[in-house]
Amino acid sequence: MQLPRPERHLFLILLNNLMIKITFLGTSGATPSPERGMPSVAIHAKELFLFDCGEGTQRQMMKYKVGYGSVKAIFISHLHMDHFLGIYGLLETLHLNSPSPKPIKIFAPRGFENLLINRHKFVDVISIKEGVLYENDQFEVHAFRVDHGCDAYGFILKEKSKRKFDEKKAHSLGLKGRMFREIQEKGYVTIDKKKIKLDEVSRLEEGKKIVYSGDTRVCESLAQAAKDSEVLINEATFSSELENEAKERFHCTALGIAKLASKSKVKKLVLTHISPRYKDGSILLKEASEIYKNVVLAEDGMVLDL
Amino acid sequence: MQLPRPERHLFLILLNNLMIKITFLGTSGATPSPERGMPSVAIHAKELFLFDCGEGTQRQMMKYKVGYGSVKAIFISHLHMDHFLGIYGLLETLHLNSPSPKPIKIFAPRGFENLLINRHKFVDVISIKEGVLYENDQFEVHAFRVDHGCDAYGFILKEKSKRKFDEKKAHSLGLKGRMFREIQEKGYVTIDKKKIKLDEVSRLEEGKKIVYSGDTRVCESLAQAAKDSEVLINEATFSSELENEAKERFHCTALGIAKLASKSKVKKLVLTHISPRYKDGSILLKEASEIYKNVVLAEDGMVLDL
Repeated sequence: MQLPRPERHLFLILLNNLMIKITFLGTSGATPSPERGMPSVAIHAKELFLFDCGEGTQRQMMKYKVGYGSVKAIFISHLHMDHFLGIYGLLETLHLNSPSPKPIKIFAPRGFENLLINRHKFVDVISIKEGVLYENDQFEVHAFRVDHGCDAYGFILKEKSKRKFDEKKAHSLGLKGRMFREIQEKGYVTIDKKKIKLDEVSRLEEGKKIVYSGDTRVCESLAQAAKDSEVLINEATFSSELENEAKERFHCTALGIAKLASKSKVKKLVLTHISPRYKDGSILLKEASEIYKNVVLAEDGMVLDL
Repeated sequence: MQLPRPERHLFLILLNNLMIKITFLGTSGATPSPERGMPSVAIHAKELFLFDCGEGTQRQMMKYKVGYGSVKAIFISHLHMDHFLGIYGLLETLHLNSPSPKPIKIFAPRGFENLLINRHKFVDVISIKEGVLYENDQFEVHAFRVDHGCDAYGFILKEKSKRKFDEKKAHSLGLKGRMFREIQEKGYVTIDKKKIKLDEVSRLEEGKKIVYSGDTRVCESLAQAAKDSEVLINEATFSSELENEAKERFHCTALGIAKLASKSKVKKLVLTHISPRYKDGSILLKEASEIYKNVVLAEDGMVLDL
């Protein structure tokens, strides 16, 4: 359907505002429970990404209607088995269901190649280094090191910066039609012999940032990554009663991560990787929300649209 | 609690009559569906055994209250991934939850050692050969070859034969008290200088037999194994409309296995390994039950007590 111009514009704006969809596929930590599956978060940001892929992820994708056939990339935070055992079954299903599955990139800490028992041509395994791992024309995924006693990473999914025109000023200076494209390509346009620079009539607006912690202690790199993020999806494996155990095992407490979220001006904190010891997890939510109001407890199947 | 003698006897008889419990943990084939998990059947026969262990088995055990901490042995029918990917997570959970987990034996076709990415001291991997693989004082597990285009096995869980006394005759010949133990140990007792042989006053009663097919075409070894079995748990991956595909892919049709069950005088046929193409599987049940009445369609969580 080809919409007339103004409607097309509106349609694109609407699309833009609903561009990121986060589905919590598994929200348990270390071991599953009847209520919570193993860690995995699906984020649709123009393309479909998985952040961690614990055992049973393919079935959770089927259950929560996240099209497992179109996963573009999987980001594995670290090589503890609860975070990657679902890859095998997912790859096998893709292999069985199509003679030529779409290519998938798996970004994982060094050493994952030796753990991949089913190698298929459509799978590309890339060892994680800090920095940009993947990008499409609207989003980038960055990796940053975290503190989990092993080669462990968190990830930032960042919407690329977008140029916003001061339309009133641009029109008053005579910009119209194709000049908007020209000024973006060249950095300036000339109208009536007067050079108008791109920065005079527009500015770069920072894109939204979603941060996924993996397993980690509260640490400075996480605080930096989380700064001003739209959403911080963070492990909350322990309550503050078990602060020492959390430190020893390189995990966060709900209280600790709430303090970080507050300091880093995170807009929304989502607690996940809930240990089965906490049954419904309400104790974790309670202690986090005493420090920081905008916090939710992830549940399997929970969806956030941004 | 020490029960008085007659009650103890009754109690043991009751226990004996409820001795085999079969729980269908996952009843899908090849790929999971929201309704059906990956193949695994738990059978409690004095000890707890798993027959196949597809992805997600540990969570199914938690959901259906089968104590995953006490699995004694796992029998893997063949090395297609849908039949063994759940082993990794189960072993990891046992390792995490206890400093010294109970020993587990994994019986699998040769080559499984190379696929086991998490080796733990409490795990013993044994390559399957036809014949008796495992026994306790009441049950034996046998392996038999099936026809699945690879090194593939079915399994027979067989209750050991039990000696049944003709109590009336035994008493009339003067047997009482400890003589019953003596005659079983020596094969005879002497009463008033008269030798009474064990076979005169008792007979061996065949134990119950439960057969699990793994993935296979209908074949003679399966028909032999299934003969007079109490329960045949068999794959029914295809309906007879897809008979050619079933042959090509080395699977059964529901019709084919119903014919075998009828010929082999199986007491109860359970259809499992249901392809997600059949949604609720009723078409498979329908075509099997036209040939053979005593058939049920397995569902995740279904329990049979024998």
